[in-house]
Amino acid sequence: MAKDFTSREQDYSKWYNELVVKADLAESSDVRGCMVIKPYGYAIWEKMQAALDKMFKDTGHQNAYFPLFIPKSYLSKEADHVEGFAKECAVVTHYRLKNAEDGSGIVVDETAKLEEELIIRPTSETIIWNSYKKWIQSYRDLPLLINQWANVVRWEMRTRLFLRTAEFLWQEGHTAHATKAEAIEESEKMLGVYAEFAEKWMAMPVLKGVKTESERFAGALETYCIEALMQDGKALQAGTSHFLGQNFAKAFDVKFADKEGKLEHVWATSWGVSTRLMGALVMSHSDDNGLVLPPMLAPIQVAIVPIYRGLEQLETISSKVSGIKSSLEEKGISVKYDDRDTHKPGWKFAEYEFKGVPVRIAIGPRDIENGTVEVARRDTLEKKIVSMDEVIDYVAQLMVEIQENLYNKADSYRTDNTHEVNSYDEFKEVIEKGGFVLAHWDGTSKTEEKIKQETKATIRCILLDTKKEEGSCIITGNSSPQRVVFAKSY
Amino acid sequence: MAKDFTSREQDYSKWYNELVVKADLAESSDVRGCMVIKPYGYAIWEKMQAALDKMFKDTGHQNAYFPLFIPKSYLSKEADHVEGFAKECAVVTHYRLKNAEDGSGIVVDETAKLEEELIIRPTSETIIWNSYKKWIQSYRDLPLLINQWANVVRWEMRTRLFLRTAEFLWQEGHTAHATKAEAIEESEKMLGVYAEFAEKWMAMPVLKGVKTESERFAGALETYCIEALMQDGKALQAGTSHFLGQNFAKAFDVKFADKEGKLEHVWATSWGVSTRLMGALVMSHSDDNGLVLPPMLAPIQVAIVPIYRGLEQLETISSKVSGIKSSLEEKGISVKYDDRDTHKPGWKFAEYEFKGVPVRIAIGPRDIENGTVEVARRDTLEKKIVSMDEVIDYVAQLMVEIQENLYNKADSYRTDNTHEVNSYDEFKEVIEKGGFVLAHWDGTSKTEEKIKQETKATIRCILLDTKKEEGSCIITGNSSPQRVVFAKSY
Repeated sequence: MAKDFTSREQDYSKWYNELVVKADLAESSDVRGCMVIKPYGYAIWEKMQAALDKMFKDTGHQNAYFPLFIPKSYLSKEADHVEGFAKECAVVTHYRLKNAEDGSGIVVDETAKLEEELIIRPTSETIIWNSYKKWIQSYRDLPLLINQWANVVRWEMRTRLFLRTAEFLWQEGHTAHATKAEAIEESEKMLGVYAEFAEKWMAMPVLKGVKTESERFAGALETYCIEALMQDGKALQAGTSHFLGQNFAKAFDVKFADKEGKLEHVWATSWGVSTRLMGALVMSHSDDNGLVLPPMLAPIQVAIVPIYRGLEQLETISSKVSGIKSSLEEKGISVKYDDRDTHKPGWKFAEYEFKGVPVRIAIGPRDIENGTVEVARRDTLEKKIVSMDEVIDYVAQLMVEIQENLYNKADSYRTDNTHEVNSYDEFKEVIEKGGFVLAHWDGTSKTEEKIKQETKATIRCILLDTKKEEGSCIITGNSSPQRVVFAKSY
Repeated sequence: MAKDFTSREQDYSKWYNELVVKADLAESSDVRGCMVIKPYGYAIWEKMQAALDKMFKDTGHQNAYFPLFIPKSYLSKEADHVEGFAKECAVVTHYRLKNAEDGSGIVVDETAKLEEELIIRPTSETIIWNSYKKWIQSYRDLPLLINQWANVVRWEMRTRLFLRTAEFLWQEGHTAHATKAEAIEESEKMLGVYAEFAEKWMAMPVLKGVKTESERFAGALETYCIEALMQDGKALQAGTSHFLGQNFAKAFDVKFADKEGKLEHVWATSWGVSTRLMGALVMSHSDDNGLVLPPMLAPIQVAIVPIYRGLEQLETISSKVSGIKSSLEEKGISVKYDDRDTHKPGWKFAEYEFKGVPVRIAIGPRDIENGTVEVARRDTLEKKIVSMDEVIDYVAQLMVEIQENLYNKADSYRTDNTHEVNSYDEFKEVIEKGGFVLAHWDGTSKTEEKIKQETKATIRCILLDTKKEEGSCIITGNSSPQRVVFAKSY
């Protein structure tokens, strides 16, 4: 399968596109910019969802569901918000089709025109805050901690599977608080949840920071983000958490009575991650042999392939495998025993390697004689003969080791590709090679824009946990309180 | 809370509408026909999803995700299908908004008109079969067993929370098979899954049958359904499974090579249940005191309320509760300990009763002295003093008992409200009282339509597992091979 497969060095972008399709994660649909998430890809997304959903519930959030449609006038209520999303809105204008009078087929029924156009949600702040107005009266109703799993639509002109699609799946948290401090604490807490998920589950190290003003979410006072570094040296924004201040509370007139009965506008946050994480996962670990998945998100953690001639051999092997499979499953490890007779062992090896299954076990007649199996790990491609008595513990240990190894590898890559620079010349040289570049910046949008125009690099974030270090801007020489993180990005 | 609450006898329809809103299950949004599913309602839906999803996976299905949008031309490819859905389609015609030139606000950008209109999926056969064309070449690719959890939109003119909304959540299975027999077997298998879910989880007995031709899904050769009887004597269609023949395979030209290399069109099924099940659940068991939930779908199975004066008493009670709570949780029972000091015990009792929490435990200072607790069950409203030593086993047993009792109660109601009739006069008299009416029918759409026009009753289904009994049609007197099930319905 890896035969017709582009390598990362040949063409990283093509490598990614081919990998997503050939590993059966997703494919483009005939609808512009919309993807089909195939069962193997969707199974990974389900594992992500389950882990995140548990983390949200453990931090006190509840799920709910709000309408797909947003009346145009609602979207317009928060000025920055509509400005940010107007140019990429799918608009519903009619609610009926009919047979064309000239018999040419099915056409839109012009008599069924909506009085007010409906926007397919690009994000749900406006429709949700319209509900919160009814739900919040008193400080007793706060904090209101709600999450929604949903599809959203942003009519992007240039799309790529998972990374940027017109329709995508995501979760969006929308919370309401009595005080500014509480809302900021919530934004930061959820950023922490995202970072923990990225690092622990996806084995993907991330930087935590805030966006500059020009990169903020439309309607936010502060946008927190996690940023990861892909293998081509480009940054990928993997999740954002917004402190919205009282903007939406004011736009939708949501006030609460405090303990003294005084009416105040509510403070808000919103936060989201999307199927974009699938793209981040693929690009963080995969190699020229195909997908590499961290065990904690792999739909199949162990594939077992029998090597046999004739039914009798298969039966002997299968009876051994049955014990191994159930012992592994008792340890919570998902196992697929692939005894299909329609494909040869070599084909199966290639298949599981390409699809990133963390561990593959092969068992042949000689293994049966010797009481052994062959265990291959996907991350290092190492193989080892292991005795059947020890294989359960060995594989359970491998799950932990592979997860750690992937994290450490990604972390080393990031360390190797993070550089401090102290002049614009140095900046331009280093940024061309990719990676994160730490440089001093004078804090103005003008400087930020100049660098973006000239180098295509943007400020990915201003780090939250970093040493303060006085310096001078690489462009203007004006003073700067700390280095910020630049990179080219997805 | 139950004070301002309409009783079923006063006005069943009003009772339902009030219950859904007051029990915090859902509410209408400002978007015509679209609902907001509130956290308590969504938590029940999540439990339904989890149970169904497991049943789908246990029967070999995988989840995937297909686009929200369907090009108009795709929807038109299967003639009956588009005929069935054209009149209720939300249509996307533009992909951008802009500032009005006269400064009057945000308007649709007329220069951003789509070449081909996109329909928000009312169901996904067409977009999915367009993908299947690429996925299916050989008998080795079959069967293809896929399910999707998604939102769909049908522009209904008269909507009611959960029962009929413009946007609703559902799952839709779409399978492809090599033979007709296999596809029919799949349709029937999934009907069985739905019936099992309805009876085991929802405690709601259902009839299994097939629809008459006039009630079939648009594009199906056979529509299987489960039908439940609500407390007002009206039937509710709770799930459908369709045998689609080769209609969609022909419309999208999906063929497979069989073992001999001969090309054949694929055979198809589709099947779905939706948030309509929430309405069915509410109407099956709830009473004039509010919601009644079967333990297997209750987000909170046991609520514990302390009765105390002063912090010292509360602490003594809380330390006892802590042990009870964790012992119940070890048995997989979800428990909420409500020690809020903002509400009195009586208010809490009313709250949990109205929200249908199956079991409520109260503990006061006298209970501490006596080593007892008071256990109240929601279904019968009975209370019992139980010793602390026995409470864990007692409550665990109650979970089973309440689940069974709700099923038995609904089953008795259905038995009491199912009648055989042998003349049209008798039919008209009995159908007015509600319930299922079993009568002979001559098999023609004309007779079916006449009965519908004159009595508002429809044929809910032709039972699958029923005795064959020759008879004569109550309208025409023509021969009939078996009785069919009539009812007024939702």
